Amino acid sequence: MQRALSVSRTTGNKSTFPDWYQAIVREADMAELSPVRGSMIIKPWGYGVWERIQQTMDRRIKEMGVDNCYFPLFIPLGFFAKEAEHVDGFAKEMAVVTHHRLKAIDGKLQPDPDAKLEEPLIVRPTSETIIGDAFSRWVKSHRDLPLKINQWANVVRWEMRTRLFLRTSEFLWQEGHTAHADREDALASTQQALEMYREFAETVLALPVVAGEKPENERFPGADNTYSIEAMMQDGKALQAGTSHYLGTSFARAQNIRFQGDSGELEYCHTSSWGTSTRMIGGLIMTHGDDDGLRLPPAVAPRQIVVVPMLRDKPEDAEVLAFGEALVKALNATFALGEPIRALLDTKAQRSAEKRWNWVRRGAPIIVELGPRDVANGMVSFMRRDDLRDGDKVKSQALPKDEFIAKAPALLAAIQQGLFDEAKARLDANIHRDITTWDQLAEYFGTGADEDEDGGGGAFKGWVRAAWSRPTGEGLDAIEARLKTLKLTLRNAPMDQPTTFAPCIFTGEPGVEEIIIGRAY
Amino acid sequence: MQRALSVSRTTGNKSTFPDWYQAIVREADMAELSPVRGSMIIKPWGYGVWERIQQTMDRRIKEMGVDNCYFPLFIPLGFFAKEAEHVDGFAKEMAVVTHHRLKAIDGKLQPDPDAKLEEPLIVRPTSETIIGDAFSRWVKSHRDLPLKINQWANVVRWEMRTRLFLRTSEFLWQEGHTAHADREDALASTQQALEMYREFAETVLALPVVAGEKPENERFPGADNTYSIEAMMQDGKALQAGTSHYLGTSFARAQNIRFQGDSGELEYCHTSSWGTSTRMIGGLIMTHGDDDGLRLPPAVAPRQIVVVPMLRDKPEDAEVLAFGEALVKALNATFALGEPIRALLDTKAQRSAEKRWNWVRRGAPIIVELGPRDVANGMVSFMRRDDLRDGDKVKSQALPKDEFIAKAPALLAAIQQGLFDEAKARLDANIHRDITTWDQLAEYFGTGADEDEDGGGGAFKGWVRAAWSRPTGEGLDAIEARLKTLKLTLRNAPMDQPTTFAPCIFTGEPGVEEIIIGRAY
Repeated sequence: MQRALSVSRTTGNKSTFPDWYQAIVREADMAELSPVRGSMIIKPWGYGVWERIQQTMDRRIKEMGVDNCYFPLFIPLGFFAKEAEHVDGFAKEMAVVTHHRLKAIDGKLQPDPDAKLEEPLIVRPTSETIIGDAFSRWVKSHRDLPLKINQWANVVRWEMRTRLFLRTSEFLWQEGHTAHADREDALASTQQALEMYREFAETVLALPVVAGEKPENERFPGADNTYSIEAMMQDGKALQAGTSHYLGTSFARAQNIRFQGDSGELEYCHTSSWGTSTRMIGGLIMTHGDDDGLRLPPAVAPRQIVVVPMLRDKPEDAEVLAFGEALVKALNATFALGEPIRALLDTKAQRSAEKRWNWVRRGAPIIVELGPRDVANGMVSFMRRDDLRDGDKVKSQALPKDEFIAKAPALLAAIQQGLFDEAKARLDANIHRDITTWDQLAEYFGTGADEDEDGGGGAFKGWVRAAWSRPTGEGLDAIEARLKTLKLTLRNAPMDQPTTFAPCIFTGEPGVEEIIIGRAY
Repeated sequence: MQRALSVSRTTGNKSTFPDWYQAIVREADMAELSPVRGSMIIKPWGYGVWERIQQTMDRRIKEMGVDNCYFPLFIPLGFFAKEAEHVDGFAKEMAVVTHHRLKAIDGKLQPDPDAKLEEPLIVRPTSETIIGDAFSRWVKSHRDLPLKINQWANVVRWEMRTRLFLRTSEFLWQEGHTAHADREDALASTQQALEMYREFAETVLALPVVAGEKPENERFPGADNTYSIEAMMQDGKALQAGTSHYLGTSFARAQNIRFQGDSGELEYCHTSSWGTSTRMIGGLIMTHGDDDGLRLPPAVAPRQIVVVPMLRDKPEDAEVLAFGEALVKALNATFALGEPIRALLDTKAQRSAEKRWNWVRRGAPIIVELGPRDVANGMVSFMRRDDLRDGDKVKSQALPKDEFIAKAPALLAAIQQGLFDEAKARLDANIHRDITTWDQLAEYFGTGADEDEDGGGGAFKGWVRAAWSRPTGEGLDAIEARLKTLKLTLRNAPMDQPTTFAPCIFTGEPGVEEIIIGRAY
């Protein structure tokens, strides 16, 4: 049996990994490029994964006492001028609306010169400024604090080089924004969001991550502290899968978000923001995919168990369909991972072998093939997507129908856990702690590093976790430049730190913190 | 007891109804204007209603075999030139993106002339063109049909005069798009969506509607047939709450959506599209609101039962809170209207009387006030928002805790039904069938009609249902012009039609159809 996917990630060809990624996106029917430069169309299976992400994360966001709202897509240009660092960070990549009407001029449709906006509008790249403006109206006294809101929205950051889910001009995300009376409360909220992301990534996406604080040079424009979760992809690179920012009082000062403190004086709020996006779907693919396509953790799979009836245009077909319908109905009335099972009887007019491989490529966790003989014997034959093959042979198991239904919750839980364990073992085995000097770092990453600029290919290197002296300003710039020669970046300083440190890997000075170094998307 | 809302809808002042509407939007904390011209901020309570609409309608959309997707926000200008009628209908009100970068020039941030787009991008006013383009790639053979997709998205249609929820430049909606092999199937799908909207409006929103077909002059740009559901507001005007369009083959021809038919020839698909938006929330307010604020049908209320503990900074407070927590927990484990009850213990630091009136204004269906005496007696005292007053006095009932929990599902169902019945009685009583000539129509609507241009005020007139001869072209234009002098429009021709007709109300010619005539939002 050949692999189901047209491109393998493991042939050793250094351009293979990005090709393999694109092949999954295409063959699992997740998304496609649109005729609009830099934008993608998210297809039903890919959007189904996003809906699962939304449902499961939204519950967690609400449990944090955060309310959902909706803020305008357009932000007046002037808003960006208020927070200087922020605009420096975003000004280079924004879509600008300048007209509000089209007109046929010389037979050609074009922006109507009479409908030019007095002030251009920016399509939001993120919403700190416009939400801060609302906060300035909503916050009057300490009784209005903390104020915690979130929105699920589309944002636009112009991109010249697109990669589906990982980097597109328009993407879907959630952005949380909070305002607090003091630094301590705001920082606690920032870290609560980070911890929610970590737990979500590990529990729902089966994506083991390292949660930590970004170094100064990797901070969100205008933030005092930026935290991230970083996941290791199957090419050994890091994917930043979520960020949480403590913004200090800089946005509050720019937007005049003040409250009457105990003293009666007006004080500036401390604010935070945090976000995750459709990029996580790219992380899912690059973590769990194999040479047969995607493997979806059951918690995030739009369909967890797909029943493919083997129909032959014969009288037995009716019995097969009836058996399948009853099976799916019983499964959908059963709970797994805290929710009703999502099972589907695939009755599409297509050959059953073709359907089976489509579901393998899409990564449905359990695929049932139902033939007349199974039905006659009351049996269910199924494949586990996480454990598909024995060598070249596809593995299939059979259980009596009632036993299959009874065992389905445990099977799905085992698949969820198995995918996490596999990725966790890879992560743990590939954070190298034995590289402690610049020379060792340069030697390790200096070989096999000639991958394409877009971040594809190259030998699997993993990450290095080493002590550093946490220099700032020019000292940090110099380190960033040296790392760049090896195509490396500082990812984050993990939240769990030892109490004593080796000397700084960059300078040999006393270390004060351990930091993750790696190549990244 | 005074009314809770600052503005009454019933004082007879003709400018009162729009003011009353704005007061509810403001005082029920639903939404506010943003600093971006024409755009609104949807606040937590308003957005909670939208989330309920999304959840309950999305289930219905999926049951129709429709898959959710996501398509780009930006549409290349050239796409609009393809379908001539369509562009005529929309060209006047679109946001145009012309640059993809800002630059500081003479110290002022402005669109970078070096980053001007070769082809401007339009912020989608609706997505027929870009989805049709995808359909042209996705549809190859009759086995790919019918193709049914939906997206939940934001759209922009430039508006100079804004009214929250009813008319804003940006709004949130869902748009369904389908492609079929023939007219019959496409038309059936168009009408299935219409029927889904009718059932949704009546069951979830408690909004009785008239479903019918729009006359030629009110069709969606490019459509062969447009259907709508029309609801009657408390000022007697019509609100179009959802539309469904059979697009014939015109979009398929413009976008080249073809399939290989049985004959082997390539044939054009027949397509449909259908949408509803945040406008429905405006319809909810204008249908169910009263002089105390909003009244939300339980099926769409973010919180159905709110428990307000009366705390006095005394030791009994702990018992009151514990009782309240247990009550809310028991309610949330109980099913009503097919879902777990959504109850909340409001522990916000605010006076309990203030909290109670906030929930009255927001329209929570049941409001429980919990004091130490209730707790000591194991009783629950509550108000029904749909039946709040006896004259000026606020009505309160008390039940033992267990009995209240046991009766909660029936209470919520009764409130849901009661709000529908009240609105249905108003609708039925105010569709006038006794006006059968133009003179009668002019006389009836010619008095008390001097409302403001924005559609506010004026005497309550309701609608007229009369036979007409369904003229087209210039004949219809003339009728439209005559109706305009009375500020009237043709709403729709209801789906349920008699078999014989009176003469045409406009021309006296033989009638062929009955049509609804009224003022509208």
